[in-house]
Amino acid sequence: MTDVLAALDSTGLLRSFGRTRALTEALADPLSPEDQTVQSMPDASPTKWHRGHTSWFFETFLLDGKLPGYRCHDPAYRYLFNSYYEAVGDRYPRAQRGLITRPGVTEIGAYRAAVDEAMGTLLALDGSDDTTALVTLGIHHEQQHQELLLMDIKHALSCNPLLPAYGAPVPPAPPPPEPGRGGGTPEQASMAARPTTTAAGDGWWRGGGADEQIGHAGPGFCFDNECPRHVEFVAPFALADGLVTCGQWLEFMADGGYSRPELWLSEGWAAVQAQSWDSPLYWTAGDDGWVVFTLVGSRAVDPAEPVCHVSYYEADAFARWAGARLPTEAEWEVMAGTSPVAGNFLRPGVFHPLPARQGGGSIFGDVWQWTSTAYHPYPGFRPAPGAVGEYNGKFMVNQYVLRGGSCATPVGHLRATYRNFFPPAARWAFSGVRLARDC
Amino acid sequence: MTDVLAALDSTGLLRSFGRTRALTEALADPLSPEDQTVQSMPDASPTKWHRGHTSWFFETFLLDGKLPGYRCHDPAYRYLFNSYYEAVGDRYPRAQRGLITRPGVTEIGAYRAAVDEAMGTLLALDGSDDTTALVTLGIHHEQQHQELLLMDIKHALSCNPLLPAYGAPVPPAPPPPEPGRGGGTPEQASMAARPTTTAAGDGWWRGGGADEQIGHAGPGFCFDNECPRHVEFVAPFALADGLVTCGQWLEFMADGGYSRPELWLSEGWAAVQAQSWDSPLYWTAGDDGWVVFTLVGSRAVDPAEPVCHVSYYEADAFARWAGARLPTEAEWEVMAGTSPVAGNFLRPGVFHPLPARQGGGSIFGDVWQWTSTAYHPYPGFRPAPGAVGEYNGKFMVNQYVLRGGSCATPVGHLRATYRNFFPPAARWAFSGVRLARDC
Amino acid sequence: MTDVLAALDSTGLLRSFGRTRALTEALADPLSPEDQTVQSMPDASPTKWHRGHTSWFFETFLLDGKLPGYRCHDPAYRYLFNSYYEAVGDRYPRAQRGLITRPGVTEIGAYRAAVDEAMGTLLALDGSDDTTALVTLGIHHEQQHQELLLMDIKHALSCNPLLPAYGAPVPPAPPPPEPGRGGGTPEQASMAARPTTTAAGDGWWRGGGADEQIGHAGPGFCFDNECPRHVEFVAPFALADGLVTCGQWLEFMADGGYSRPELWLSEGWAAVQAQSWDSPLYWTAGDDGWVVFTLVGSRAVDPAEPVCHVSYYEADAFARWAGARLPTEAEWEVMAGTSPVAGNFLRPGVFHPLPARQGGGSIFGDVWQWTSTAYHPYPGFRPAPGAVGEYNGKFMVNQYVLRGGSCATPVGHLRATYRNFFPPAARWAFSGVRLARDC
Amino acid sequence: MTDVLAALDSTGLLRSFGRTRALTEALADPLSPEDQTVQSMPDASPTKWHRGHTSWFFETFLLDGKLPGYRCHDPAYRYLFNSYYEAVGDRYPRAQRGLITRPGVTEIGAYRAAVDEAMGTLLALDGSDDTTALVTLGIHHEQQHQELLLMDIKHALSCNPLLPAYGAPVPPAPPPPEPGRGGGTPEQASMAARPTTTAAGDGWWRGGGADEQIGHAGPGFCFDNECPRHVEFVAPFALADGLVTCGQWLEFMADGGYSRPELWLSEGWAAVQAQSWDSPLYWTAGDDGWVVFTLVGSRAVDPAEPVCHVSYYEADAFARWAGARLPTEAEWEVMAGTSPVAGNFLRPGVFHPLPARQGGGSIFGDVWQWTSTAYHPYPGFRPAPGAVGEYNGKFMVNQYVLRGGSCATPVGHLRATYRNFFPPAARWAFSGVRLARDC
Repeated sequence: MTDVLAALDSTGLLRSFGRTRALTEALADPLSPEDQTVQSMPDASPTKWHRGHTSWFFETFLLDGKLPGYRCHDPAYRYLFNSYYEAVGDRYPRAQRGLITRPGVTEIGAYRAAVDEAMGTLLALDGSDDTTALVTLGIHHEQQHQELLLMDIKHALSCNPLLPAYGAPVPPAPPPPEPGRGGGTPEQASMAARPTTTAAGDGWWRGGGADEQIGHAGPGFCFDNECPRHVEFVAPFALADGLVTCGQWLEFMADGGYSRPELWLSEGWAAVQAQSWDSPLYWTAGDDGWVVFTLVGSRAVDPAEPVCHVSYYEADAFARWAGARLPTEAEWEVMAGTSPVAGNFLRPGVFHPLPARQGGGSIFGDVWQWTSTAYHPYPGFRPAPGAVGEYNGKFMVNQYVLRGGSCATPVGHLRATYRNFFPPAARWAFSGVRLARDC
Repeated sequence: MTDVLAALDSTGLLRSFGRTRALTEALADPLSPEDQTVQSMPDASPTKWHRGHTSWFFETFLLDGKLPGYRCHDPAYRYLFNSYYEAVGDRYPRAQRGLITRPGVTEIGAYRAAVDEAMGTLLALDGSDDTTALVTLGIHHEQQHQELLLMDIKHALSCNPLLPAYGAPVPPAPPPPEPGRGGGTPEQASMAARPTTTAAGDGWWRGGGADEQIGHAGPGFCFDNECPRHVEFVAPFALADGLVTCGQWLEFMADGGYSRPELWLSEGWAAVQAQSWDSPLYWTAGDDGWVVFTLVGSRAVDPAEPVCHVSYYEADAFARWAGARLPTEAEWEVMAGTSPVAGNFLRPGVFHPLPARQGGGSIFGDVWQWTSTAYHPYPGFRPAPGAVGEYNGKFMVNQYVLRGGSCATPVGHLRATYRNFFPPAARWAFSGVRLARDC
Repeated sequence: MTDVLAALDSTGLLRSFGRTRALTEALADPLSPEDQTVQSMPDASPTKWHRGHTSWFFETFLLDGKLPGYRCHDPAYRYLFNSYYEAVGDRYPRAQRGLITRPGVTEIGAYRAAVDEAMGTLLALDGSDDTTALVTLGIHHEQQHQELLLMDIKHALSCNPLLPAYGAPVPPAPPPPEPGRGGGTPEQASMAARPTTTAAGDGWWRGGGADEQIGHAGPGFCFDNECPRHVEFVAPFALADGLVTCGQWLEFMADGGYSRPELWLSEGWAAVQAQSWDSPLYWTAGDDGWVVFTLVGSRAVDPAEPVCHVSYYEADAFARWAGARLPTEAEWEVMAGTSPVAGNFLRPGVFHPLPARQGGGSIFGDVWQWTSTAYHPYPGFRPAPGAVGEYNGKFMVNQYVLRGGSCATPVGHLRATYRNFFPPAARWAFSGVRLARDC
Repeated sequence: MTDVLAALDSTGLLRSFGRTRALTEALADPLSPEDQTVQSMPDASPTKWHRGHTSWFFETFLLDGKLPGYRCHDPAYRYLFNSYYEAVGDRYPRAQRGLITRPGVTEIGAYRAAVDEAMGTLLALDGSDDTTALVTLGIHHEQQHQELLLMDIKHALSCNPLLPAYGAPVPPAPPPPEPGRGGGTPEQASMAARPTTTAAGDGWWRGGGADEQIGHAGPGFCFDNECPRHVEFVAPFALADGLVTCGQWLEFMADGGYSRPELWLSEGWAAVQAQSWDSPLYWTAGDDGWVVFTLVGSRAVDPAEPVCHVSYYEADAFARWAGARLPTEAEWEVMAGTSPVAGNFLRPGVFHPLPARQGGGSIFGDVWQWTSTAYHPYPGFRPAPGAVGEYNGKFMVNQYVLRGGSCATPVGHLRATYRNFFPPAARWAFSGVRLARDC
């Protein structure tokens, strides 16, 4: 799988397409037909559904309209693999995706191959801007599902009392030097590149105090929710130069973090009680301390590694306990600035945040960082016309923005302006915490 | 599969054991790993769970205590495959059986083989009455799960909008003549053998008017809930000589059967409204009339075949509409009397009730027949000591007795005294209706 | 209130009507408008709804059709106060009765007065059998609601952390001597009167061993579910001559009664866990032992008094623990035989079961006694034509029969053939346990 | 009640206290004990609970600590009337407030009188800043509950099929001239007073294009969530000079507004389907068109009056349909600027939004206006120390800000910086829509 991952920053649309499609298959490869079938909660989807849906996306938005003579692979798939596009038609109920045993993994593999072949034909015929834009969207869409695939199978496997591993662990190699940066760490690099911030060496990066440009600018791809670029006033603030670690989280727990209502939002406290939260998701109390379930097996919690799989409610309570707060998404984006996008992203045999000394520690990667900003349209936001306009806009309520990418995000997928989002009770994303405070 | 089925009435405990174990595997054989993994509702279980649990039964109640030197195949299976035996220990939550992807079908197959081999050793060593009794119980237990396996996979496949078939249809052969009965139909045979009943030729069998012996007597196997044999007074009654057909059910529907509260028990009417029932389970309205989903595919409803997959509430409402009532279980048992146990039982490529002229029509088989008797312990009932005592007794509340076996019941499993039971809202069993009335 | 209660056994339909109507008002009298408005769970109803609904019954089934020129008091009441009569028309959702603040208690009082006056007119004009039968039904119907009123307000008041009392306690007077019986206790009387049973003086009454006549016979009133009288074979059995006491229940609790799954029906054990049952309803653990909430205030549990407010599941588990079982309803009826109907029924200032030495101890009264018999139609049961036919029959599923009446049952309401019924999880009725065993 | 309302802007803390307390009682006065007892949904509270809780607030935060020798009126009230203050101790479950019949309305009246008397003593003794601040907070707190009382009783009465009116209608008098403004309408006044906006006479007010100061400044009272005052950049925008009317809403409905998923947020569309929304809350389809239930009775929908009782989801869908959007709270506050706070606030016999020509039409009053801004802490927000710090902060998640006050908001309660908030599905507040768009 490694070469697949390494090569993803290649040029050429077809090559990118092929690499992305291959990575999805590589991610599904360790999973048995049984593994690929289950759905462990309504928010999650089966592996084979992800494999089918990402193919459906290319078939529906490209092949059906643009490839002359293309015949739909199977009309039933149109219904089975539509996720939420009302404009495309009815769809199978989301919460019951785990009941569909047929098509099985073999048929899904054939569907993927047929779509890939037809896409090859299309791309040889049609180099129009519209097609290029849609294929690019489809690639980024599939990358999002690669991360979802890992989130969802991790949750499914965790429901098994045997706690089976998705894959074998591989010791993380040190991160490659940034191209053209002389081997400086990402942090050093990003500091140097950020004129509006100051590094005081006290563990906090500083910025703000001015109107700032927020949102995507420039020629590269972005999702519609990153636009339009616009002005926001950002008051002076500080952002921690490291993620909250498991060691700090253990202190929070030891200090009654999960039993003191004054630390929590009212809804958060209700969630703690209703769901009996007493630690991050995937932690269990073992005889010799806390144990964490990862995609490469269970092991003792490492105090040095960033905490992961915490909800917005927990992130917010921790920040209150720590005398700090969560950053806004504008603060985070100002700080990320023009830093090179490097860090602990999806890497075979890891799939887990790393301590700073082992290749974690960038402002990007390791864990998605909860911000205090509700997911909302930027001023002047316009969804695209047609069904793809349903991509992002209709989810802009009751969710919170996360920034930075995680150890399950494909390399090459992230940007400083990238906006991820989840409801505040969600824990199955690779989500963690970076603190902020006023200056 | 046919020879497996045909040979089940052979003698010899090991042979019976082997045939039963082989039939389970034959029933699972048409199903992919994906098919075998899902659980479509809390009442149902995955195919591979049935395969594992029936093996767990032999391992737990026989191998663990009786085979010297036996080493548990996998300690985790003890937890995963315990269904409801509190005395055996904790168990995995029933409603989440569909989340267990590992062990997969291959590991389950190995588990079955290991248990079979160890059982062979045990049976060669140990011919004690206790062992023989427990093995016999285990065989009948596994036969029950064979029917559950078919019920459960039918429900799971029906959730798929593609409505995939479990197997290919095979035209039913005419039923073999009863041994030593000269080819008379089962009904004629049973009539002749039943001194307390009279056949008036008007579609009703008559009986009752005396104290009757109810419950199992004799040397053969029975479940604990069939004992002790005891006296009940049975008033004069008549029992229909045929099952309610789909044609009659269509009349009921056409006469507003599902929209007239006066026909229904109060709870039944609530179920009709809450679940929008307007026909039996697995019926859908097609362009050319009602279509029924069967294990060998979907096809038009045949008015001549017995109606199937109706709840107690529906059976009761139909009976009221028809100016009749459901039989009590004592009435049914009196009428079945000493009739030979023949009829449309589990047969490859059928799995569906048959019109009388095609091999259905016995008092046994085709569909389980709802009785109006709540499932209760017979006077003097004593559960067996130990964990197997949990087999039946603890379910004796809020369920109703069904009699007669169905087209999914393994040949050789039924008796006239056999008591099946389901909650009154259940529809996924192969359940139908035989009417009764007072005389 | 006392004279009202004492006089209920007077003759004369109008007088019975008047006394019954007055008792309802006397029972509501200690309750404020606020008290009369609330509904503490879907199964319960507000006091003022009971007052309205019992009037609606007379208006709907008598005044509307039989009193010339009668004008409906308020058309909206037809909808608001219909309980479950589908044939009468739509009705307000049961679970929301507690949201209806208007009509208030004053308007309900006026409604009652108007119905009473019109009924007086009707009864002066119309002495037909049909009218007499319906008025008699209405009286018995209202008596049932008197008990429900007490059950429901007890539950509502128990939800208030202040645990307010419904009324002040009155020391129970010794029960009056039976008419023409020379002051013998009810037990002695009933023993003497029961030819098929034998009193061995060992705490058990004995009976059975023959076909018995079960169900109502004779000229007096009965509900439709007590008919027709019919034969059942009753095997030899013994019935405890006393109710299970709180002292015995405390032993059951001390012996792990609520934490040993082997004692429970499977559904019962699920209820124990889901609802955290660890004692009868209305018991709470105080600093000095268990405290019981009664309609006349909270006080220490008296070990000598019969246990009350237990579900069928609890009654069944207790019986299993005690090495006994619950009686069938036929056994109970055989034993009650022709005993005079005396015991601890509804009495002001008591509303609670009494120890045998204080006036409890009859086979009747104190607490409704769970039987193991599912509520079913007697052989040959026919509901009455028209809407009153909905009275009982449509509830004959998933409920269990209770016998004997309770300390909240109006004097004069009970019979030996009387069948009460509740779902097995219900606890808010005044329900307790009398054990039985095989002989 | 009118003079009570009119005098609320008087000076003197004790006088304000007294007037506020009296208004609560005046609002409860038309309601019977039955009316005051019910709770029609978990979000609502009984009238008498509001009366008790507002007294509890003064007792808990003032009398208990500050009045020497004060004895708690009733220790149980501490538990019963605590709304959500974790720091104060346990509290009665919110969703069950409607089960508390005692204390009744009379006891609550006595509680209020006792608190009022003790508060009079306290205020005569203690003029400290801290006390003054807490009393002022308590007054504004009680005003909030006055509006909640009206919202909640409206919902409760609407559950009654008789649709009883809370009070009799009173024709609205023309609004009084603004003090020192010569009778100009509020709109004209506010336009004239707002230097950053321009009135083009085309139905849109214009503003923005600069960094703006947002949040409370100045000596008067405000809630903690209005602080601190801070800078936000506000892009050029336009705000409609009128509220969306029922006539416009009817057009939206006629154009399929409630059946076109493309108009809705995904969660909103799910709410439409799950709750069968097809019009604003309290609208029902009558024979002659839509009828609206108001606190002074039901009547035909007036197309000229502002639409009311719509959720955020509906407001958002309407805006999308209209080719516009909801304003941000900063835009709204910029536009409200220094306008005098006048409009259709709480007025006896009205309790409903008014057409512009009848006294509605200000930027304030009539209906709370949904903004697209998620309720969040302002930069630098600090909750007060102690239990009152729980007032606002812990609710800052999954809610949206509404601005402007409504026809149920007490006169004198509003400010331009006032932030109300509800979850996006809430409809029982007097909430409506003012559109915005980009410039």
